[in-house]
Amino acid sequence: VTADLLVVGTGLIGTSVGLALRGQYDVVLDDPDAEAVGVAVARGAGRPWDGGEPFRHCLVAAPPSAVAGVLSGLMRQGATYSHVASVQRTVQADLATAGVPLADVCGSHPMAGKELSGPAAAAGGLFVGRPWVLCPSAETSAGALAAVREVAERCGAEPVVLTAEQHDAAVALVSHLPQVAASAVAAVLDSSGRPLQLAGPGLQDTTRIAASDPVLWVELLRQNAAAVAPLVRQLAEELDVVAGALDELAITPAADPAPVESLLRRGGAGRRRVPRKRGELDRDFVVVPVSVTDEPGQLAGVLVSAAQAGVNVEDVRVEHLPGRPTGVIELLVHPSSREHARAALSQAGWDVVGG
Amino acid sequence: VTADLLVVGTGLIGTSVGLALRGQYDVVLDDPDAEAVGVAVARGAGRPWDGGEPFRHCLVAAPPSAVAGVLSGLMRQGATYSHVASVQRTVQADLATAGVPLADVCGSHPMAGKELSGPAAAAGGLFVGRPWVLCPSAETSAGALAAVREVAERCGAEPVVLTAEQHDAAVALVSHLPQVAASAVAAVLDSSGRPLQLAGPGLQDTTRIAASDPVLWVELLRQNAAAVAPLVRQLAEELDVVAGALDELAITPAADPAPVESLLRRGGAGRRRVPRKRGELDRDFVVVPVSVTDEPGQLAGVLVSAAQAGVNVEDVRVEHLPGRPTGVIELLVHPSSREHARAALSQAGWDVVGG
Repeated sequence: VTADLLVVGTGLIGTSVGLALRGQYDVVLDDPDAEAVGVAVARGAGRPWDGGEPFRHCLVAAPPSAVAGVLSGLMRQGATYSHVASVQRTVQADLATAGVPLADVCGSHPMAGKELSGPAAAAGGLFVGRPWVLCPSAETSAGALAAVREVAERCGAEPVVLTAEQHDAAVALVSHLPQVAASAVAAVLDSSGRPLQLAGPGLQDTTRIAASDPVLWVELLRQNAAAVAPLVRQLAEELDVVAGALDELAITPAADPAPVESLLRRGGAGRRRVPRKRGELDRDFVVVPVSVTDEPGQLAGVLVSAAQAGVNVEDVRVEHLPGRPTGVIELLVHPSSREHARAALSQAGWDVVGG
Repeated sequence: VTADLLVVGTGLIGTSVGLALRGQYDVVLDDPDAEAVGVAVARGAGRPWDGGEPFRHCLVAAPPSAVAGVLSGLMRQGATYSHVASVQRTVQADLATAGVPLADVCGSHPMAGKELSGPAAAAGGLFVGRPWVLCPSAETSAGALAAVREVAERCGAEPVVLTAEQHDAAVALVSHLPQVAASAVAAVLDSSGRPLQLAGPGLQDTTRIAASDPVLWVELLRQNAAAVAPLVRQLAEELDVVAGALDELAITPAADPAPVESLLRRGGAGRRRVPRKRGELDRDFVVVPVSVTDEPGQLAGVLVSAAQAGVNVEDVRVEHLPGRPTGVIELLVHPSSREHARAALSQAGWDVVGG
């Protein structure tokens, strides 16, 4: 029997692909780490590959530097091949050097991930609504492009076709630059040695991706160094100018704050160009906070009361208060529903908090 | 009648304090912007102040540079005074210069906020579980400290007593540095002029606070310039070193990546020192995604099914897919509940997605 898809590499991305395709594709899984294959199989991402069974398409979900080696060992066992490398130019060059038949290969990169890794962190919904970049080379056949496009679409992603150069320039800006920036802010925190108990969501969000795997990221930054270096240098220069202006303001409070103000204003303009987060609050939603005990069913109870009162809850957040037996459930509703929601929930016996 | 509290400044913080104290304190509100007072009153944050009515305690929620002027105009109308300035040393100095009786004043700073401002964005739950720094000066009386501590506690915050110097050094690190960093990353995005359609949560989180009010932030950074400048310079130097290493790696891929790896590793260590976000996923929780139509009651329905099956839902996220009539509800459960939750929800007729 010919499998629909061989996934080589059962980490976060490979296992998530297998999970997303469950019930759609006959997926076989391979990884040099047998334990990782075991976890992915147990999660339901596919069957273990026996090393000989033929396959229609192969997706290599391995680090960029490993892709060419893996693919050249598999050629002639399948029809078409793709990979999910976060950097594309170097992999295209490696494939050409390795003598892989380039017509059968189409690079790709799903723009989804987490700061966590490994098959245990995988999720079948990881790619839903996210861009999945397809990077055909000049040699890539229509069949190879169509095969990886089908995988992307069946995972719920939105395919976007770019050249390898376009892709690498784009990820340098939207992914590699923020990674370096987050790591640098967190490195300053680390070297300060000071307590951080006053930290709030601003610092938490700004440094979240600093938790990413350093081994993986050294490789990504090395592979895309030419595109990332000028952006990091520009960031350093922006900060150096602001540091100089702040030095002057520290001595002379009446000094010119124009460099600081310029950075903040241009930053605001740049932020407005960042696509909205999936599920991000509409600016027009307002919060109805409800204090609850930390027991099963409280969340459902609050939402049932809201539904019974005809309140459309746009989003909900649960805040567990550290070290307390209670939490706050925040319902997000349209402003026109706020007072009705508050009244209905209070009447149903819920502890609606503050204003 | 003597009001319990006069709040001067009905922006985000002042209005949120009024909302949080609703039913606990008789709150009167004042602001040079009559429209802002009107919105705060309409939201239920308090009554308008007539300018003559006496008050027990006054909280000035105005920009730091305005605090001393506001307070010196109010002295002798109330018993004790506080403010919520994000920078404390300069305000203490301003108060001394203005000849305000320092025994009656205790500075404070609730560590809560948003990238949004104004009374419409206020929320009574804003301070729940958050630190609220109390900064008594050497002259502050026990009564003035107790009065602002009571306000903080009644708002649900956790009071933390620090000197003005300790406070300003701490916020330089946990608030002002990440603001400058986020603005600088977003300024690089802006100057690139390139499309950002591949941006994901990493860039979104790293730049979220770049949307903050530039006028407010120029003032905060000016007031705390002495504490912020060396941190911004250190950040610039970290990035300059990495830019240099990336330049070398771009020319010679076999060059030494140690500076890049060091940054990533120290960044990981710094990130581990950041307190966890309220409601942040426990690392041990796993996601059960359910696809639903975008209609009222779906969220409640899913949670009722989960509760009926005895599944303890730790957290929930709602993802509206742009341009689609459906969304994904992600339930976060303990790994031991995953398969039971999936089976129970499927049996109840819900569309449980992928793995």
